[in-house]
Amino acid sequence: MFNYNDLLNFSTEVFLKIGCPQDEADLAAKTLLSADLRGVDSHGVARLTGYVRLWKAGRINPKPNVRIVHETPSTAVVDGDSGLGLVVGPKAMEVAIEKAEKVGTGWVSVKNTNHFGIAGVHAMKALQKDMIGIAMTNASPLVAPTFSLERLLGTNPIAVAIPAGEEPPFVADFATTTAPNGKLEMLQRKEEKAPEGWIQDKEGYASKDPHALKSGGALLPLGGSKEHGSHKGYCLGAIVDIFSAVLSGANYGPWVPPFVSFLPLAPDPVGEGIGHFFGAMRVDAFRPKEDFKFHMDKWIQRFRAAAPVPGQARVEIPGDQERLIQEIRIKEGFSLLDAVIKDLQEVGKELAVPFPKQEKENA
Amino acid sequence: MFNYNDLLNFSTEVFLKIGCPQDEADLAAKTLLSADLRGVDSHGVARLTGYVRLWKAGRINPKPNVRIVHETPSTAVVDGDSGLGLVVGPKAMEVAIEKAEKVGTGWVSVKNTNHFGIAGVHAMKALQKDMIGIAMTNASPLVAPTFSLERLLGTNPIAVAIPAGEEPPFVADFATTTAPNGKLEMLQRKEEKAPEGWIQDKEGYASKDPHALKSGGALLPLGGSKEHGSHKGYCLGAIVDIFSAVLSGANYGPWVPPFVSFLPLAPDPVGEGIGHFFGAMRVDAFRPKEDFKFHMDKWIQRFRAAAPVPGQARVEIPGDQERLIQEIRIKEGFSLLDAVIKDLQEVGKELAVPFPKQEKENA
Repeated sequence: MFNYNDLLNFSTEVFLKIGCPQDEADLAAKTLLSADLRGVDSHGVARLTGYVRLWKAGRINPKPNVRIVHETPSTAVVDGDSGLGLVVGPKAMEVAIEKAEKVGTGWVSVKNTNHFGIAGVHAMKALQKDMIGIAMTNASPLVAPTFSLERLLGTNPIAVAIPAGEEPPFVADFATTTAPNGKLEMLQRKEEKAPEGWIQDKEGYASKDPHALKSGGALLPLGGSKEHGSHKGYCLGAIVDIFSAVLSGANYGPWVPPFVSFLPLAPDPVGEGIGHFFGAMRVDAFRPKEDFKFHMDKWIQRFRAAAPVPGQARVEIPGDQERLIQEIRIKEGFSLLDAVIKDLQEVGKELAVPFPKQEKENA
Repeated sequence: MFNYNDLLNFSTEVFLKIGCPQDEADLAAKTLLSADLRGVDSHGVARLTGYVRLWKAGRINPKPNVRIVHETPSTAVVDGDSGLGLVVGPKAMEVAIEKAEKVGTGWVSVKNTNHFGIAGVHAMKALQKDMIGIAMTNASPLVAPTFSLERLLGTNPIAVAIPAGEEPPFVADFATTTAPNGKLEMLQRKEEKAPEGWIQDKEGYASKDPHALKSGGALLPLGGSKEHGSHKGYCLGAIVDIFSAVLSGANYGPWVPPFVSFLPLAPDPVGEGIGHFFGAMRVDAFRPKEDFKFHMDKWIQRFRAAAPVPGQARVEIPGDQERLIQEIRIKEGFSLLDAVIKDLQEVGKELAVPFPKQEKENA
């Protein structure tokens, strides 16, 4: 088990070593580690070495000039200047929040950026201002739209954070595919079959082999098959792609640059970097804050009190699980996979940043 | 086969007879019939008698004073004054568009309204102004969230319309359930089994019996089961509900008034009527219009050109199918189910509006 602060400090030092200014190294590390805290292990410190490799490949600018290149009172396009999405994302969300303070809502599309960690942490930034926060990003093409043999979309997540009164906030954060890649990787390690509707093989047939993605297959949009509504998942992934990249001038669809540095960039880019999209809506731009919070509490309480189906304890409110995990992990720390530890130790050695010791044995 | 104009005139006359002013009767009929034109038979003229019954029950105000009750430069709450959603919807979308003209985007949450037909037609209103249009609505509770025995959400559709240049627009319009109620009704008539993931029975178990919904079961959120991502469909339906009703002051969750007049209203309403949510974003609030259209065309062309999976002809762009159906139906007319014809003939007789003759025999 690792202590949260130890891993946060380690990550900050690594970002400093690749050339980030202190405040941006702090921000990047905190944004990255928020994934581990919320239980999304695939998007947290396990990805730190991936960012370092992208920096080595010259694809990440550690000192970006993040700036607005086009704006109206309620909108902006932000150019991330090839910075870490972990830094560009929070800065762009800040622009959305500032605009919402002035005119009720703010909407920011971002180009020339890189992966931003989990979408939820960016959306949640709006909560402290009594705003609804929205965050999306496109990503490397791993998903085949309905009836497509080709991978044309990323897992393109959507996050929506909604403040409440006495109740904790509603926080939805989900990939627009049936299953996230991280869960597929778990099945690969355990050599277990994947449920139907998660993937297709390289010939385009439904597959239960979790290795099918790596051998030329594709993840499937939420729904999994046309009969089960995968055209709706395809619509969602497409909307995220268009809002994040066609609005901003980033790469979209199959042109989105890969996260892994060993895959080449498209020879014919259609934009700059990957794209994000952020939104902030002041709840009091619609009705008095107290009324909104009263009814949001009532909404949450009614749904949480619903009778469950046999074999289930309760109906969950989006964000419940992640909040519980965070409470535990802040207190007790969390374990990392041996492969991840080895990877981080190597990058620490290379950059002369000591990797923290485990508090207890890895579980 | 019925002629489009004949059914449009019939519907307009019916709306006049229940007391709508001429311009609103025209608007309501056109909005209603746009569903038939786009092939969404369940939401078109087949529902006309439903609206008349709601009017008879005193739940629809034919002469509403639709007005803004709260606003900021980019937002508004509109009170629909118990009007037809077919009239309130277009008026509220107009408010969103006017705000987008001034400050880049406009966002309108609506309370005290009724069913608005298909979401897509409202979102598409933004296209003529080179804006992205967004429309959502909550609806009668027929859907059980993940792990819920109770029905707490409606089919809560989301529509997003995005303009292009040479290409026709991208128009996504979908219920946030695995399957729409209309398809279930078709299976009921044919006495065929439903695919897994569409419904659960009244005990909360997955069911393939298309009659299970009517006997106390529930529709399932997009995904169908937790293993297949139904918690994501639940998030989507919840977001639509909250944006449409908790932001505006309409009824939400299980309190949403039923569309059918024979079901009673909740004795303890938490708001007024049902709720909608509309958005409009000027594309040139983000980048020059020509650049956006060039890349949107390129996006559409790339996806349409993708290699299909075995047995399928092509990858479709959202809106392709509905546009083709509309072209045919405008020219050739369309058929109605015998039960629908009988229903419309009765309402016509009752209100002294002659029901049109078929051009050819019903197919």
